[in-house]
Amino acid sequence: MPDSLPQPIEGDPTARVLVAGASGFTGALAAQIVWRHPKLELVAVTSRSDAGKRLDSLYPRYRVPLELSELDLDEIEEIDAAIVAYPHGASAPAVAALRGLGALVVDLSADFRLRDLPTYELWYGEHGAPELLEGAVYGLTEFYREQLRDAELVATPGCYPTASVLALAPLAERGLLADVVIDAKQGVSGAGRGGGEAMHYVSMDENAFAYKTEGHRHRPEIEQELTALGSPAPVTFVPHLLPLDQGELTSCYAQTSEPISKEEVQALYRERYAGEPFVHVVDGPPGLRDVRDTNECHVYVTVEERGRVLAFSAIDNLWKGAAGQGVQNLNLMLGLDETMGLL
Amino acid sequence: MPDSLPQPIEGDPTARVLVAGASGFTGALAAQIVWRHPKLELVAVTSRSDAGKRLDSLYPRYRVPLELSELDLDEIEEIDAAIVAYPHGASAPAVAALRGLGALVVDLSADFRLRDLPTYELWYGEHGAPELLEGAVYGLTEFYREQLRDAELVATPGCYPTASVLALAPLAERGLLADVVIDAKQGVSGAGRGGGEAMHYVSMDENAFAYKTEGHRHRPEIEQELTALGSPAPVTFVPHLLPLDQGELTSCYAQTSEPISKEEVQALYRERYAGEPFVHVVDGPPGLRDVRDTNECHVYVTVEERGRVLAFSAIDNLWKGAAGQGVQNLNLMLGLDETMGLL
Amino acid sequence: MPDSLPQPIEGDPTARVLVAGASGFTGALAAQIVWRHPKLELVAVTSRSDAGKRLDSLYPRYRVPLELSELDLDEIEEIDAAIVAYPHGASAPAVAALRGLGALVVDLSADFRLRDLPTYELWYGEHGAPELLEGAVYGLTEFYREQLRDAELVATPGCYPTASVLALAPLAERGLLADVVIDAKQGVSGAGRGGGEAMHYVSMDENAFAYKTEGHRHRPEIEQELTALGSPAPVTFVPHLLPLDQGELTSCYAQTSEPISKEEVQALYRERYAGEPFVHVVDGPPGLRDVRDTNECHVYVTVEERGRVLAFSAIDNLWKGAAGQGVQNLNLMLGLDETMGLL
Amino acid sequence: MPDSLPQPIEGDPTARVLVAGASGFTGALAAQIVWRHPKLELVAVTSRSDAGKRLDSLYPRYRVPLELSELDLDEIEEIDAAIVAYPHGASAPAVAALRGLGALVVDLSADFRLRDLPTYELWYGEHGAPELLEGAVYGLTEFYREQLRDAELVATPGCYPTASVLALAPLAERGLLADVVIDAKQGVSGAGRGGGEAMHYVSMDENAFAYKTEGHRHRPEIEQELTALGSPAPVTFVPHLLPLDQGELTSCYAQTSEPISKEEVQALYRERYAGEPFVHVVDGPPGLRDVRDTNECHVYVTVEERGRVLAFSAIDNLWKGAAGQGVQNLNLMLGLDETMGLL
Repeated sequence: MPDSLPQPIEGDPTARVLVAGASGFTGALAAQIVWRHPKLELVAVTSRSDAGKRLDSLYPRYRVPLELSELDLDEIEEIDAAIVAYPHGASAPAVAALRGLGALVVDLSADFRLRDLPTYELWYGEHGAPELLEGAVYGLTEFYREQLRDAELVATPGCYPTASVLALAPLAERGLLADVVIDAKQGVSGAGRGGGEAMHYVSMDENAFAYKTEGHRHRPEIEQELTALGSPAPVTFVPHLLPLDQGELTSCYAQTSEPISKEEVQALYRERYAGEPFVHVVDGPPGLRDVRDTNECHVYVTVEERGRVLAFSAIDNLWKGAAGQGVQNLNLMLGLDETMGLL
Repeated sequence: MPDSLPQPIEGDPTARVLVAGASGFTGALAAQIVWRHPKLELVAVTSRSDAGKRLDSLYPRYRVPLELSELDLDEIEEIDAAIVAYPHGASAPAVAALRGLGALVVDLSADFRLRDLPTYELWYGEHGAPELLEGAVYGLTEFYREQLRDAELVATPGCYPTASVLALAPLAERGLLADVVIDAKQGVSGAGRGGGEAMHYVSMDENAFAYKTEGHRHRPEIEQELTALGSPAPVTFVPHLLPLDQGELTSCYAQTSEPISKEEVQALYRERYAGEPFVHVVDGPPGLRDVRDTNECHVYVTVEERGRVLAFSAIDNLWKGAAGQGVQNLNLMLGLDETMGLL
Repeated sequence: MPDSLPQPIEGDPTARVLVAGASGFTGALAAQIVWRHPKLELVAVTSRSDAGKRLDSLYPRYRVPLELSELDLDEIEEIDAAIVAYPHGASAPAVAALRGLGALVVDLSADFRLRDLPTYELWYGEHGAPELLEGAVYGLTEFYREQLRDAELVATPGCYPTASVLALAPLAERGLLADVVIDAKQGVSGAGRGGGEAMHYVSMDENAFAYKTEGHRHRPEIEQELTALGSPAPVTFVPHLLPLDQGELTSCYAQTSEPISKEEVQALYRERYAGEPFVHVVDGPPGLRDVRDTNECHVYVTVEERGRVLAFSAIDNLWKGAAGQGVQNLNLMLGLDETMGLL
Repeated sequence: MPDSLPQPIEGDPTARVLVAGASGFTGALAAQIVWRHPKLELVAVTSRSDAGKRLDSLYPRYRVPLELSELDLDEIEEIDAAIVAYPHGASAPAVAALRGLGALVVDLSADFRLRDLPTYELWYGEHGAPELLEGAVYGLTEFYREQLRDAELVATPGCYPTASVLALAPLAERGLLADVVIDAKQGVSGAGRGGGEAMHYVSMDENAFAYKTEGHRHRPEIEQELTALGSPAPVTFVPHLLPLDQGELTSCYAQTSEPISKEEVQALYRERYAGEPFVHVVDGPPGLRDVRDTNECHVYVTVEERGRVLAFSAIDNLWKGAAGQGVQNLNLMLGLDETMGLL
């Protein structure tokens, strides 16, 4: 749309990156972050539905003046890495093809998040590239940092698992979680570009409601990760939609296997996340505005009058909940500073 | 503001009503409901801070063309009833004075909600009219209907207790509640007209957060009522603020003392609320838009994969959560149809 | 959705009314107003796209517990009147058919607003029932009241013409308008239930923009009416979309054929609208919140430093801009009080 | 609030910068832009009302971990430049003092925008440093670029004048403007941090209205600049407030001294703004979302059916309308690339 665009931050590119599925909310943001990244070169943006359009006509604010093309493996110029922002199911074959070209792949879909194939099939259906499951690294950066440095395929966690696990991990690592209720709230961008009448402005304005109350597929992912960290606790998970654009808030209600005081749990969290560039333990319940358009996660933990531990986390679902965390991991895979392009 | 106003719905007044504290959000709505009520006559609207202004200059949309005055007991014309919308603490003395004039009183504050005086003092401070506590009837209409018909002083429940107890009562009555987490979400009108910078449009726009995480005084009120209904369960209660005007959503996570199936619990709720004019058991998680500007409460109950009962309720915090329920009760006190002026 | 619904306000029906196209925003509101009207009986609600659904499942808040059906002229029970909320073009044939049954018809579409057939055809295409054009009365109640009492077919004005003409009419009647710029702003409900991605919550949130800048078909309608009132002035008209649900604001910039002072023009407006039940001349620029969910139009007029007359009007586009004004006119057609069911 | 913060983009600072008044909306953003700027070092942030607080406790999202202090000239470390974000009136003395220290000053207030002292006094009252007026350069970058390179004191234009003049300048330069109506719309952040009840979330939610209809002090500033560019046309200017956070839209209705076609005027605009890094001539009416959190101005121009030129511009009022343009100018004053830190 703009007829002349200033070049983004200058740098000396380390890697050539393709973003597949760049016309969706998370893919478009991934393209923007790569476009402005001092060490990454955005060589192509692809879209199954909007090929031929310029990305900045769909997302003027992101100011990426590239034309969307079909993903054609024969036409791809040499790339070092790809970020795939396809829907689950559609992602696995594309990931396999890109891996076949030798590219490092950061997948933003659900296809490689669940390590157990039957669990995947139960919640998502047939898997398009089960042979890649074992090698995929789960991209919750703060807990898989070392593996991520050597990874060739990274499954970026779901937005709800990112926020939920970051809120609960310090307790989970100590084996303290006995029972967990997660009440999660998300802005409308979390529902993606489609959605029809239910996502019409008039439908969501001045509205809020729970959804998927009989079971959301992010629950097994959360349980997988809490178990991996040390607490195989049952999780009750209910997501809600809020009348706002970007942002995700989790309110976690945890019963612990042994009592813990407010002071202890706050010290535990501060210690665990000390030095983390993007996870900040804050002094009161975090707000969504505070993390909007950032890769940060703000966490607050306390103990309420009845003895339950309350843990709250706030992220931007498109950033730390998807594209931002994806680039955070790509930085690690490429040997770059983890925060590059994300501050 | 308008220079000539059509008269509201014509009727043959049964009672002359004063609304004290009519310049706040709940008092103003109470004044409007009374003004348009076919059997009530709004004889005066008072305000401590805005005396001299016309109510329709503060709330044009409510179209009540009356001037606010100071509450002066010597000047009050003969009244049959009063709705008091003062802050807690300030309310009790005003209620006592109005009762002294022989008026039926519907109090919208917290002053007469907690039946146990020490509990009141713990959460709210000294009580201004403890002698009236015993005679006050708790105005959760659906559960105190018979006592309300004979009541002379009614304590309108808090907005959170209204929504929470309506969501949980059918289980509580059966003694089934073993442990309850209530994650409540409310629009900004719930915080009242003040609030300063924290309630500035720019502060709340695209924001959402928990508050009072270390203890909110609606928790003892909820526990009082669940206990009264038959389930003395511990309650974890955390309120959140959402970027919208009117509306309140509770998401309740209940562990039951014995297992209950989805079919059983849904049947229990439908049976319990059958015939209730304002409580509707709906077929999926309720949304705030559906109840905006109504006196309705929409309730949905289900059982999630882990066996927890999930109960959701949506109300308009200013209507069923305050002024609407206040008039619902006043109708009963006056022998009128409970729904009059509220449909 | 609710399993039992209280009956709306009791009354002694004067007329049996059908609402066609009740699944759109304006039709649904028309159905609700009729449903709650003390002298109208809502006998059927029809929908081309949602037949078989209950209206209160689409619009829970309106609480009309009737099932939508196809419009089948052979199946229609005896009706006295119909409100037609079809898109332009589709409306004319339906109106003709309903008139053929002898029903009074209030049309909410554009099909009978333009008295000049070639102008209609230029902006809207072929006309489906040109023979009815001559008998149709333009339903801007405040200026066609007498004709409306005898009308059998009423064309409800467009929302923008309603707000614009009410803002300018007192000047137009005096022949004072020399040149007019109308900058109009509307909430998203004005765009109707469709709209696809452009009306997605994420597209409109924190957004605002002009549209139809090269020509909007409400301009000839506004010019027709200002001319009819006495001022055949050229009109520049640009509509904008705002991030809110219901509401429409016009800011009119008028050059007058002779100078007029602020005092004179304010007196002129107050005099002209004195006694009007729904048009209120207010003391400062009107706000959309003040008229939300009402049939009111708030008008403010002043003269700015450079001598231009500024006239502002605020309405609820679904009420005074469509369904509310439709019922206001139906009241007149049926010999009822104009305000009945609308206060 | 965060306990450890990653350092922003690394660079080799060219200038040490103080931001005075950093607790207001525009000052806080100025501080953030400087903080993240590769060639500027943010050495101090001052506040008259919030000294002692950390800036990131007031604006977590901006992530500037510095403590606000009082502005104490004796305590100021050596600085090369200052950005002053005080209210008009309060700004002039602070600017004079900072100039006395030899610092380059970018003033975000109105104090040095109007070149004519009597006009300033008429609209703003007594001037606190009239001796500096003559040397101040008006910081509408696109039209004063050369003077800005040598400036020592820059008056950043008002947000409305920025958007309005950018929308009209190509016509003004040709002397084509005969009469102009500007209908401007702005988000709530434009009203600043104060505002009391009128800016309460509940007051602005679902609301929109005109204000200052009898005269806004940005009008003389707009006229000054259009005249300076070549068109001393009378301007009618009316601002409106919209229910959103950041963003400003102007819709300009211009009568030209001679006819101009749509093709001609669009070519004129494209030519005039070709090569401008931040002003983009777009293909349709611009939307606020497209420029949110950017320093861009999107402009669209067309000619409507009646021959009037319509020109639309969209900016982020805090960026191009204040702090962003301030830094754009500071870059020029310091000999840096104009876009540095702003892309």
